[in-house]
Amino acid sequence: MRYTEKVCVKYQHAVEVIAKRWTALILKVLMQGSRRFGQLAEELEVVSDRVLSERLKELELEGIVERRVFAEVPVRVEYTLTEKGLALSPVVDAIEKWSQDWLEIEPVSIPVAQESCEMPVLESDY
Amino acid sequence: MRYTEKVCVKYQHAVEVIAKRWTALILKVLMQGSRRFGQLAEELEVVSDRVLSERLKELELEGIVERRVFAEVPVRVEYTLTEKGLALSPVVDAIEKWSQDWLEIEPVSIPVAQESCEMPVLESDY
Repeated sequence: MRYTEKVCVKYQHAVEVIAKRWTALILKVLMQGSRRFGQLAEELEVVSDRVLSERLKELELEGIVERRVFAEVPVRVEYTLTEKGLALSPVVDAIEKWSQDWLEIEPVSIPVAQESCEMPVLESDY
Repeated sequence: MRYTEKVCVKYQHAVEVIAKRWTALILKVLMQGSRRFGQLAEELEVVSDRVLSERLKELELEGIVERRVFAEVPVRVEYTLTEKGLALSPVVDAIEKWSQDWLEIEPVSIPVAQESCEMPVLESDY
């Protein structure tokens, strides 16, 4: 065996994290700087608040996003990429570049329900 | 909306292609050069012939792998990366690098059945 189980497991975990629907978009916005939930929701208007909230929790558990609470009135909560999260930048860029360079998506082949990023899901998001 | 549906759809399609179990390993071997089925199966001994065959067909349909038949006796069939497939190299490298740099996989947390790359699947592989 040329590739160890460990490499496989790590690669597979990484790719599953970034393959979750909307995750790349959330990362791309946060790469521009910290955001409050409402700001994120506004910039990613195609993503429902519930899904955005789920994704942020998942990314927080992965150590990719940090949730910072500022003791103000009212309390301010901001989401920021950690160093680990910022390090995903070349990954997202590489996938985006390849998909732009090489994929031809024919509009007619995309069912109406999938028009606003509603791609076939990898797992149940809802 | 800052990111068009089109970008989303392309990104999501790309990430689903590379997230399929074993695909990255198959690509990595083929990046070293053309292989016959038997050679691939030998180098990727953790992958069953049936799954390897399925993956190769999928990659062929995606235009990532080319299946070349040589009119010899016996017939020789080789799998080669297309230009589109070779262009995935930076993507696979970026994911691998990030996962190596940032992911700590604790052996105890991996169920026995998942030891040999049997990660939680994104979809039914079997």
